[in-house]
Amino acid sequence: MKKLAVLTGGGDAPGLNAVIRAVVKTAILRYNCEVLGVRNGFDGFVDEGGIFPLTLGDVRGILPRGGTILGAANRGNPFARKVMRDGVEVVEDTSQRVIERIQSLNLDALIVIGGDGTLRIALKLYQQLSVPVIGVPKTIDNDINGTDFTFGFDTALNTAMEAIDRLHTTAESHHRVMILELMGRDAGYIALYAGIAGGADVILIPEIPFHIESVCAKIQDRVAAGAFFSIIAVAEGAHPAGGERVYRMEGDQVFLPRLGGIGQQVAEALAASCGVETRVTVLGHLQRGGSPTAFDRVLCTRMGGAAVRLAAASRFGRMVALRGGEVVDVSLEEALARPRRVSLDSDLIQTAREMGISLGDE
Amino acid sequence: MKKLAVLTGGGDAPGLNAVIRAVVKTAILRYNCEVLGVRNGFDGFVDEGGIFPLTLGDVRGILPRGGTILGAANRGNPFARKVMRDGVEVVEDTSQRVIERIQSLNLDALIVIGGDGTLRIALKLYQQLSVPVIGVPKTIDNDINGTDFTFGFDTALNTAMEAIDRLHTTAESHHRVMILELMGRDAGYIALYAGIAGGADVILIPEIPFHIESVCAKIQDRVAAGAFFSIIAVAEGAHPAGGERVYRMEGDQVFLPRLGGIGQQVAEALAASCGVETRVTVLGHLQRGGSPTAFDRVLCTRMGGAAVRLAAASRFGRMVALRGGEVVDVSLEEALARPRRVSLDSDLIQTAREMGISLGDE
Amino acid sequence: MKKLAVLTGGGDAPGLNAVIRAVVKTAILRYNCEVLGVRNGFDGFVDEGGIFPLTLGDVRGILPRGGTILGAANRGNPFARKVMRDGVEVVEDTSQRVIERIQSLNLDALIVIGGDGTLRIALKLYQQLSVPVIGVPKTIDNDINGTDFTFGFDTALNTAMEAIDRLHTTAESHHRVMILELMGRDAGYIALYAGIAGGADVILIPEIPFHIESVCAKIQDRVAAGAFFSIIAVAEGAHPAGGERVYRMEGDQVFLPRLGGIGQQVAEALAASCGVETRVTVLGHLQRGGSPTAFDRVLCTRMGGAAVRLAAASRFGRMVALRGGEVVDVSLEEALARPRRVSLDSDLIQTAREMGISLGDE
Amino acid sequence: MKKLAVLTGGGDAPGLNAVIRAVVKTAILRYNCEVLGVRNGFDGFVDEGGIFPLTLGDVRGILPRGGTILGAANRGNPFARKVMRDGVEVVEDTSQRVIERIQSLNLDALIVIGGDGTLRIALKLYQQLSVPVIGVPKTIDNDINGTDFTFGFDTALNTAMEAIDRLHTTAESHHRVMILELMGRDAGYIALYAGIAGGADVILIPEIPFHIESVCAKIQDRVAAGAFFSIIAVAEGAHPAGGERVYRMEGDQVFLPRLGGIGQQVAEALAASCGVETRVTVLGHLQRGGSPTAFDRVLCTRMGGAAVRLAAASRFGRMVALRGGEVVDVSLEEALARPRRVSLDSDLIQTAREMGISLGDE
Repeated sequence: MKKLAVLTGGGDAPGLNAVIRAVVKTAILRYNCEVLGVRNGFDGFVDEGGIFPLTLGDVRGILPRGGTILGAANRGNPFARKVMRDGVEVVEDTSQRVIERIQSLNLDALIVIGGDGTLRIALKLYQQLSVPVIGVPKTIDNDINGTDFTFGFDTALNTAMEAIDRLHTTAESHHRVMILELMGRDAGYIALYAGIAGGADVILIPEIPFHIESVCAKIQDRVAAGAFFSIIAVAEGAHPAGGERVYRMEGDQVFLPRLGGIGQQVAEALAASCGVETRVTVLGHLQRGGSPTAFDRVLCTRMGGAAVRLAAASRFGRMVALRGGEVVDVSLEEALARPRRVSLDSDLIQTAREMGISLGDE
Repeated sequence: MKKLAVLTGGGDAPGLNAVIRAVVKTAILRYNCEVLGVRNGFDGFVDEGGIFPLTLGDVRGILPRGGTILGAANRGNPFARKVMRDGVEVVEDTSQRVIERIQSLNLDALIVIGGDGTLRIALKLYQQLSVPVIGVPKTIDNDINGTDFTFGFDTALNTAMEAIDRLHTTAESHHRVMILELMGRDAGYIALYAGIAGGADVILIPEIPFHIESVCAKIQDRVAAGAFFSIIAVAEGAHPAGGERVYRMEGDQVFLPRLGGIGQQVAEALAASCGVETRVTVLGHLQRGGSPTAFDRVLCTRMGGAAVRLAAASRFGRMVALRGGEVVDVSLEEALARPRRVSLDSDLIQTAREMGISLGDE
Repeated sequence: MKKLAVLTGGGDAPGLNAVIRAVVKTAILRYNCEVLGVRNGFDGFVDEGGIFPLTLGDVRGILPRGGTILGAANRGNPFARKVMRDGVEVVEDTSQRVIERIQSLNLDALIVIGGDGTLRIALKLYQQLSVPVIGVPKTIDNDINGTDFTFGFDTALNTAMEAIDRLHTTAESHHRVMILELMGRDAGYIALYAGIAGGADVILIPEIPFHIESVCAKIQDRVAAGAFFSIIAVAEGAHPAGGERVYRMEGDQVFLPRLGGIGQQVAEALAASCGVETRVTVLGHLQRGGSPTAFDRVLCTRMGGAAVRLAAASRFGRMVALRGGEVVDVSLEEALARPRRVSLDSDLIQTAREMGISLGDE
Repeated sequence: MKKLAVLTGGGDAPGLNAVIRAVVKTAILRYNCEVLGVRNGFDGFVDEGGIFPLTLGDVRGILPRGGTILGAANRGNPFARKVMRDGVEVVEDTSQRVIERIQSLNLDALIVIGGDGTLRIALKLYQQLSVPVIGVPKTIDNDINGTDFTFGFDTALNTAMEAIDRLHTTAESHHRVMILELMGRDAGYIALYAGIAGGADVILIPEIPFHIESVCAKIQDRVAAGAFFSIIAVAEGAHPAGGERVYRMEGDQVFLPRLGGIGQQVAEALAASCGVETRVTVLGHLQRGGSPTAFDRVLCTRMGGAAVRLAAASRFGRMVALRGGEVVDVSLEEALARPRRVSLDSDLIQTAREMGISLGDE
């Protein structure tokens, strides 16, 4: 192995830099292998100046830092790249140029650090065009199969939990219903874990469509028991059962979904149906930032090192993974075969219910 | 001094419990004076069970905790208390009942911990009805005169700064304009301090009406200089110059202010006028929660102790205050004579500009 | 299941209260089962007032708090309890009194939350005296087999990593060798994980006896490469190869081991052999305190719930465990059969070496 | 003003980089003035490569980072510089070379960021050799007069307070006396503030010589009142009244001061005189590291800007200072005329006593 390249794709996640550092250090220190950085995801293969050498000096001090020194396009897809042509946005297949670039660079391996979307592109490049890819599963949503945890999740989770901790005292002292909207469009891991860790009273996740009446009942039960406050953790992808919208038009009052997320919608619905005073916090991109936790930093460092070892062993089309405390590897195809969601049979769900947490479905 | 009472009013602020603890410890340990707690602000004087003894045991372990063990009504005003009568909300003057309760309890002093609104009520009780009040200035907004800092501000500020820190890496790696909406309806201290501390590129505060074009220009200047991201800290009370709304109706697209705060409005306006991609985070009540910082805990402890000493000296109608590192006292009347706002002549404003931060008015 | 008791034993670990809370909530809410708390470990079975009812109210608000509301003797061993008799400390077997108490209380199960020592006592009570015990593995050292992680470890690890982060800037700016002594008498997990997470240059753990010359060489290599500082993470149980002491007498200068731990010894040895200026920080009990991380809080909550379910299923002599992201159970006997140490074949060790970290044995 | 230089001297303090950044930004953006960095304190004027240009790019992203990008010798004193000559360390006066360098560089001003020692050198350079210096007061110990607070103190204080918070739960659950040794050789601000903020039971500072019997009595009073634990915050410079050492030789047991600091000595003395079990944590350099708090970041930014404005106004021999919430300037001579110590008449001391905290002198 003489030369490998590394890129990061998709949304930000704490630990990207830690993986990059581990890739560079392992490649250079152990394999004496040259490393190239690819700027802004797959776009770097096409853009001018998109490829540049990465040295030990470049990765010095980046272990504790959020973000990515490589930059990240939002899943810039070489098979369907959006470009402006004569002032009009068109979609073109640039995969051939990616291949050519990879060949002209004499790359022995391409390490792709990304979430579901980015890894699917990597798999396609591997399967259709024989690009020697190795995947590293990144997503704060923890929604990739084949690994106990993706990196970035633990940090996002702690950020979310600390937010619930902060809301607790105010809720308690001031008799409020506090709603915290968390990330998780399709998978509710952040809301579920953070809700359990923070002692939320209600947790709403995409995997379990909710009834607003059920949420309302929980709040009223608590009031009846002398607890004049409640904390609701809601994943952005949570939605009511039956597909109806949470919000309604009332007289001339319109609640536009564009401006208000599900947190705001739940707040409005609770105000209307329960008559409780609510406050909404949308944590948003705070969950993507910050210095990674120890768990994430160690995971990233192990995964980065393991990815280089896989490359050295020419085990392409594989993804590094954490299984039972050990870092192993799995087939990218297998990992991506189906989306990962919170299992309703998990002891996590059972635990949440036993803690008296409402999941909005009783 | 045989007996004093203490109450907390208004919105939550980190350090309320630290003040209560200091009041109780100083009163009992130094003055051998009985302390009563008043529940939910001034309402406790009227509600059943609203007055109860506070012992050393009650304040054990509360120093690091957010919230208030006394509970806090939202400025329940005894001069104009909202009550339900025959299903209708009416306003009644309950101040006489407060006086009678204070007299029947033989209170030597009433320590009122609150913000502008609560302290005004305290002042009125003192001036009009000779209630022996001592004030302790609490507000995360830092908008009370006569004291270098109110308590709660330092903690809120650090929470806001950490949010900016988190947004920085994502903004930088992903070429985004990140907007963080912070508290501050009339005074922009949190946004100004946190913006300087976090290295924001634009800070919008109520004291300086902004031009969206000016914000846009700053972002474009940065792009021209190779910085493809920007961080905007905006106080909730910031508003455009000329009084016009930031948002507009465009065709059939309505941006309702009720659902979107100023952060969302700035985002929409920037998308429309600059064509940049933005992400909004509304920090909301997170700024009111959490364990107080060292600065706030020490300030609260000193202020609580000083309030009791003032009471023992029968110096009523006074407010404890921090001046140049020492805790002193000022007249409540003087402190509340005019609202406190960010001074445009302050070296803080000058510093912000020298750091290259746009305040939206150039 | 009508009645169960819960106790915590051994040194402090973040998350004890979270387990207690989960036990109480699951037992009462799901099984309508009474819960008794045992004060100060097994001593509570013998001491007056050592057994008391635990209600939902008792566990309210304790999820985020360090420590244990039950108190913890230091592995007070009922088989060999130290008591004062006529002013002399004698050891007596009080196990029979424990049994009698358990029988007289009509306990259906005893949930024992503890580390290696406490769980061994639980196992003996189960095997020799048929006490219906369920174990929950607690130790910041992560040195119990059968579970991917014990609770408390993740929090301790983050505390240790943050300490390394803090030392980094000073080391770098001031050209110092910073030594951080961490917990880990027999197992080096904290030092190894925290060292990797914090980017330490040298990590010394009990499992790998070190040569001071090797440490010295690493520091000098770094200086030669222009890095005039180094960070050394050392587990308290680390020791030099060959069994010799690190410190020596030099002339009339004595380095007493009683006052100086291994961190201080390494510092002295490096000063003597390398001539470098060092600073030592002993993190000590800071690693046992603080609010648990999200990982630990979720793990504790799941483990507490699972322990009650095991009790309800009369699966005594078992320990709850985390395996590959799921909470399962294992035999206490099996888990305690041999001590858990850092495996030298682990990818963690390989990763550390690939990151260029010296383990003191090259 | 065409050209100014900036240097940092003495021990590390959080916020050094924030000051450097503010100096560079203000000088370039407002005054269009060139800025030179001086490496490793005054040594940079003599060492090869010790002077280099500082650009806006050099200070990008350093606001939140601990340490100093300039490096810092330990008060390398140009009037008495230690150098190796023929293998022997000799002291030489290099002040003339500093002057020559300053003249040859055509420096209009030299901004010196440092503590008591570094600022004294700056004052001497100003008074004796007319070097155009401006001082910025840096020290985590807060021991410089003329300013309400030095920068670095607030961050160190929060680090110390968090340590006390962590120790609290363990102390409480495990019935221990926890001793935390904090920085403060001559001034006890960190221990006093952190002790009040963290709710310590005993605070020992250099300004108040202590009696170990007094500390012992406090611990026993607490035990008598049912509190079987205590927290002691001790400044490294605290010492017993009468000048005797805390530790003693007992039989053949020697307690060497070289290895054990005052924390360890107090622990031994308490074990001997009270028979209590203690645990000692020496926080050490952790207090100098970490990302600065909001207070420190804002203070640093204001002070850096103000220093450049002073330079532009040719107000040399002055030091920037915080007074009552405003950044002003004072004479270096006046500020350094006498050392700053905790005033025994301060309301802080009174507050500590009223909280029931023992200062070891009753």
